Amino acid sequence: MTAVYDNDNIFAKILRGEIPAFKIYEDDDALAFMDVMPQSPGHALVIPKAPSRNLLDADPEVLSRVIPLVRKIAVASKVAFAADGIQIAQFNEPASGQTVYHLHFHIIPRFDGIPLKAHSGKMEDMEVLKAHCEKLKAALSA
Amino acid sequence: MTAVYDNDNIFAKILRGEIPAFKIYEDDDALAFMDVMPQSPGHALVIPKAPSRNLLDADPEVLSRVIPLVRKIAVASKVAFAADGIQIAQFNEPASGQTVYHLHFHIIPRFDGIPLKAHSGKMEDMEVLKAHCEKLKAALSA
Repeated sequence: MTAVYDNDNIFAKILRGEIPAFKIYEDDDALAFMDVMPQSPGHALVIPKAPSRNLLDADPEVLSRVIPLVRKIAVASKVAFAADGIQIAQFNEPASGQTVYHLHFHIIPRFDGIPLKAHSGKMEDMEVLKAHCEKLKAALSA
Repeated sequence: MTAVYDNDNIFAKILRGEIPAFKIYEDDDALAFMDVMPQSPGHALVIPKAPSRNLLDADPEVLSRVIPLVRKIAVASKVAFAADGIQIAQFNEPASGQTVYHLHFHIIPRFDGIPLKAHSGKMEDMEVLKAHCEKLKAALSA
């Protein structure tokens, strides 16, 4: 199977500004924003701006420019949410759990004894997402 | 809490050649080898050679040099095991599932309808690991 990039995936629409997102950070290469169906409070996503379906068809140079931001958000997330740990997940193809076909890294705060919620399809309250976004932005610029 | 790197962690010992591993690929910056407690057949790990406890205390430049290898192993893994998908996981601190305190990326082949096995603590048969390692090496050099 050849990976095909669909320009109408939801993250492509976010990148084009066609649909809104709670943006944490943005530069020429990447965007960090809140996952609207968080598996844990503060669940964020980092995506490259360059189109790729997932890691498998990604340009290695793009990955090299984006991975420092994954780390930066992880560090900020631990502080912002006083998390005990941070889980990074990146899914390729449906069998692995991928549901949006633009490469993305999940940055998920974890807390001792609290299991992850399933990616349920239920949207988080917008005010909650906004508040978590502000916390992450504050931690990033601290 | 300040992250502290323990020189006696099992991956540091593998890097120093003090304990064996089924090595898939090695260069100046990174090592790829088989996870001895695979959550799915072919489960591999990529680690930087530079010491860091996890992503949180990692040097961003080291990450930039290592992430292309994570992709390379993911691509090879999909071919080698005819996987339907590839799951990348990277855990930071115990609350997230980290059990070895040297930064590592999990590259896990996934198959439609087959859930991940738990990281059980049970070692896989050495012959199975060796065979999977050879398959990955062959896919990498194809």
